Amino acid sequence: MRTLSSQGEDWVGSSITSRQDQEASMPSTHGIHSTTFDNGLQVLVEPNSSVASASMTWLIPAGTSTDRMQGSEHGCSVLLSEMLLRGAGGLSSRQLSDAFDRLGLQRSCEPSVHHVRIGMTGLGTRLIDGLPLAVSMARDPLLDPSTIEPARSLCLQSIRSLADEPQQQVLHELARIQRPSPLNRSGLGTIDGLNSLSIDDLRASHQRNFGPRGSIIVIAGAVDPDRIVQRLSELLDDWDCPDPDVVPETPALGGTSHLQQESAQLHIGLGLRGLKQSDPRSVAHRVAIRMLGSGASSRLFTEVRERRGLCYSVWASSSNGRDRGDVTIYAGSTPERAQETLDCLQDQLAGVRDGFSSDEYSRAIVGIKSRIVMQGESSSARAASLAGDVFRTGKGRSLQEITSEYDRLDLEQVNTLAADDLGDQWLQERILVTAGSRELDVTGDAQVTRS
Amino acid sequence: MRTLSSQGEDWVGSSITSRQDQEASMPSTHGIHSTTFDNGLQVLVEPNSSVASASMTWLIPAGTSTDRMQGSEHGCSVLLSEMLLRGAGGLSSRQLSDAFDRLGLQRSCEPSVHHVRIGMTGLGTRLIDGLPLAVSMARDPLLDPSTIEPARSLCLQSIRSLADEPQQQVLHELARIQRPSPLNRSGLGTIDGLNSLSIDDLRASHQRNFGPRGSIIVIAGAVDPDRIVQRLSELLDDWDCPDPDVVPETPALGGTSHLQQESAQLHIGLGLRGLKQSDPRSVAHRVAIRMLGSGASSRLFTEVRERRGLCYSVWASSSNGRDRGDVTIYAGSTPERAQETLDCLQDQLAGVRDGFSSDEYSRAIVGIKSRIVMQGESSSARAASLAGDVFRTGKGRSLQEITSEYDRLDLEQVNTLAADDLGDQWLQERILVTAGSRELDVTGDAQVTRS
Repeated sequence: MRTLSSQGEDWVGSSITSRQDQEASMPSTHGIHSTTFDNGLQVLVEPNSSVASASMTWLIPAGTSTDRMQGSEHGCSVLLSEMLLRGAGGLSSRQLSDAFDRLGLQRSCEPSVHHVRIGMTGLGTRLIDGLPLAVSMARDPLLDPSTIEPARSLCLQSIRSLADEPQQQVLHELARIQRPSPLNRSGLGTIDGLNSLSIDDLRASHQRNFGPRGSIIVIAGAVDPDRIVQRLSELLDDWDCPDPDVVPETPALGGTSHLQQESAQLHIGLGLRGLKQSDPRSVAHRVAIRMLGSGASSRLFTEVRERRGLCYSVWASSSNGRDRGDVTIYAGSTPERAQETLDCLQDQLAGVRDGFSSDEYSRAIVGIKSRIVMQGESSSARAASLAGDVFRTGKGRSLQEITSEYDRLDLEQVNTLAADDLGDQWLQERILVTAGSRELDVTGDAQVTRS
Repeated sequence: MRTLSSQGEDWVGSSITSRQDQEASMPSTHGIHSTTFDNGLQVLVEPNSSVASASMTWLIPAGTSTDRMQGSEHGCSVLLSEMLLRGAGGLSSRQLSDAFDRLGLQRSCEPSVHHVRIGMTGLGTRLIDGLPLAVSMARDPLLDPSTIEPARSLCLQSIRSLADEPQQQVLHELARIQRPSPLNRSGLGTIDGLNSLSIDDLRASHQRNFGPRGSIIVIAGAVDPDRIVQRLSELLDDWDCPDPDVVPETPALGGTSHLQQESAQLHIGLGLRGLKQSDPRSVAHRVAIRMLGSGASSRLFTEVRERRGLCYSVWASSSNGRDRGDVTIYAGSTPERAQETLDCLQDQLAGVRDGFSSDEYSRAIVGIKSRIVMQGESSSARAASLAGDVFRTGKGRSLQEITSEYDRLDLEQVNTLAADDLGDQWLQERILVTAGSRELDVTGDAQVTRS
C-alpha cells in the first residue's frame, strides 16, 4: 500500500472559508486523504466533523460500455448490478439485506456507462462495519442461479416501463444518437441482450471486469480516515487485477429522431457538444449553460416557461465527462405549441454567442456557490462528487478548490468562450429527439422516424 | 407579539445525543424557538451551528381544500401558487426572480390539500434578506392580469401531462376515492375549474385565504433566532387576519377504480386506513407499515420484488395527518403478472395481524434512527418536518423528541396494534385503483371503470 498524497495534516481543525465570500463558511472537513493501493485501487476519504452521517461511493470499471456482446446488445452490467445485492460473501440475498439493515445502512448498486456503482449511506459510526458487506458484493457475489430469473424479470420490466415515461425515453434516445458506441448505451440493457445471459456469462463478466485497477472508493462524512484505510486495506489489499475490458468505439449517429407515440405531451430533447471536465474552459462552459437554462432566472425558464407559458418543464444541463462533454436541453409541451417551443429554444440557443450580462453572471455565481456549500452538508453528495472528480481528472477537489475555480473565472472568459465556441458550428451539430403524436418542422436536418 | 415558549435557554451549546444510541450524535441544534404573534401567526426557528445553510417552510392555510367552487371543481389554490412567483411587492416577475437569485436563494411555491407552501433555501447569512421577498409573495403578490394566461396554460399542461405518468395517475385517483371531499383534491386543480378563473377570482381568493391565522413559518439552519423573529415581526406584525375558508366535507367514495389505458405496465395502488399523528398509537403504526413495505428488507420488497421478481417498484408508505391517516401501497407490474402481484400484496397485508419478529423490529428501529440523524443534517428537511408537526399537533418536535418516541416503543406495542387494528376490518375497508390495459380480479369489491 502506497500513500500518494494527503492534504490532511495542514488542515486539521481549521475552518475553511471561501476567498470572496467569507460569510459562507464551509463545514469542518479536514482535507482529502488520498491513497492508492499497490493493486491500483484508489481510496479517498474526506472526514467531516460537522456531521454524524457518512457515505461511500464505489465506482467499479464494469459499466455498460464494457459489455462484450453481439452488435449493440448489452445487459451484463445491468443484470450483474441487480444480482450483487442478491447475496454475497456466503450470505443469502435475505441475509445480506438484513445485515445492512441491522447497521441502518442504505445501500444501492447501479450501472452507468463506465461503472457499476455501489453506494452505502448511514451513520459514520456504522459505516465501517458495512465495509465487509460492500466488499463482499464486489469481490464475492453469490451469483446464485436460482436468483437470476427474478433479477432478469425486473430488468426487462424496467425497459418495458420506459414506454410509460416518454421524457425518459427522449433522454435515452438522445444519448443513443449523440454519443459514440459503446458510450451511448443506456443503464437498462437491451431485451435480447438480457434474455441471452446465463449465470455463467455473469460469472465470466464479473471475473473479467470487477477488479481494483480503475476502482475508486470514496468515503465522506463522520469517519476516521486512518481506520477506514486500514480496514479497506485488510479487505482489499490482496484483490487481484484483471485488465478492464475495452470495447472499440464507433462514431455517434447524430441527426434527428422522432419517437411516434400517443403521449399527451410532445417531448423535445436537444443535444449539443459540451466540454470534458479536464478542459480548462469547462468551468466557463458550465456557467454559460447554467445562465442559459438552469434555475428560475435562467433564460429558458424565464422566456419559455414564465413569459410564454409554453411548457411546464424546461431545462438545460451540462455533463462534463472524462473523455467528452454533452449539453442536454429538455422541454415538454403540448402538441399544439411544440413547434413554437422548439423555435423558442433554438432562438435562445442562437443568442448564446452574443454573451451574457454582468447581472446574469453574478446571479449564476452566487447560486453556484450556495450549492457548493449545501453539497458540503450532504455526505452522499460529497462522496459522489469526489468519486466523479477522481474518475474524470484523476484528483478529488475539496469544496475550497471547487469554489476557487469560480473565483478565478470572470464574465469576459465566459463571453469569449460563447463567442468563439457556442456559435454557428455548435448549433449546426445539435441533435434533436422528439416523442409524441406529431413530428416537428426541422428543415435542414436529416430526419429518421422510429416507432 | 407574545412568546409562547422557548426551549432555547437550557440547551444552548449542549450537544444532544439520543438516549439509547450515544454514538449517533445529533447536530448542534440549540432547541426550538417558538413564537406566536398577536395576529395568530406561528413562527418556529431551530438554529443549527453545524451547517452554513438555512431553509424556510411557510404554510399558509389556502390549500386546495379551501377552494370554493362549483361542485368538485377547483384550481384557485393551484393557479395562485403559480402566480405568487410572478411578481410581488412592486417587483415584476423577472425582478422578483432576479432578486432571489442575487441572494442565491432557491424558492418554491406549491399547493397541497391544506396549504400553499412557500419554500426558500440557501445560505443562512442570506436567508434573512430573502424574508421581505417571501413576505411580499404572501401579502402583496402582483397578480398582474398579463401573467394569468401563461400561468393557467402551465397548470392545464400539468394536468394533461399526468396522462403520460400512469403511476402518478393511480396515486391521484387513490387519494380521490380514499379521502372525504374536499381533502381528496389533487394539487393540480381541474380543467374546468382552472379555465373558469379570472384575475378577480384570484384576488378575492387571496384576500380571503391568505392570512396570519393558521400560517406557520419555520426556519431551520444557520440563523440567529432573535434576528429572524425580529425581522418577521417588522414584516408581519400588522398582517390582518381573515377567517380561513372552511369547505364542508362529504364522505369518501371508497371502493375500487380502474383507469383503462394502453400503458406498458399495470399500475396498482392500494389505500388503507392509517392513524393521525396525534393518535398515541401512530408511532407503532408507522413502524408496522415500515416493516411491511419501506426499504430493502421490508416484507413487500423481499417477497414481491426480490424473491418473485414481480415488479421493479413496490412500496408502502404511511401518512399521519392532522385529522386522518392513510396507508398507501404501490406496485407496478407487467399486465401478465399483475394478478399475481395483487394477490401477493394482499397476502402480505393479511399477514400483518400476526405481528412482526424482533429481528424485523430492531432493523426497522435502527433504520429509522439513522434517518432521523440524517434529517437533522438537512436544513430543508428539518424546516419541512417541523412545519408539518406544528400543523398536525400544534407543536414542533426536536430530533431528540422524535428519537425518544421510538425509544419508548417496544415490539409488543406494535404487535398488539397489528393484532387489534390491522386485521379483518382494516383489510375489508381497503381501496384499490389500477391503471393499465386490463382489469384485475377483485371479487367482492364494488368496481367502477373510469376511462
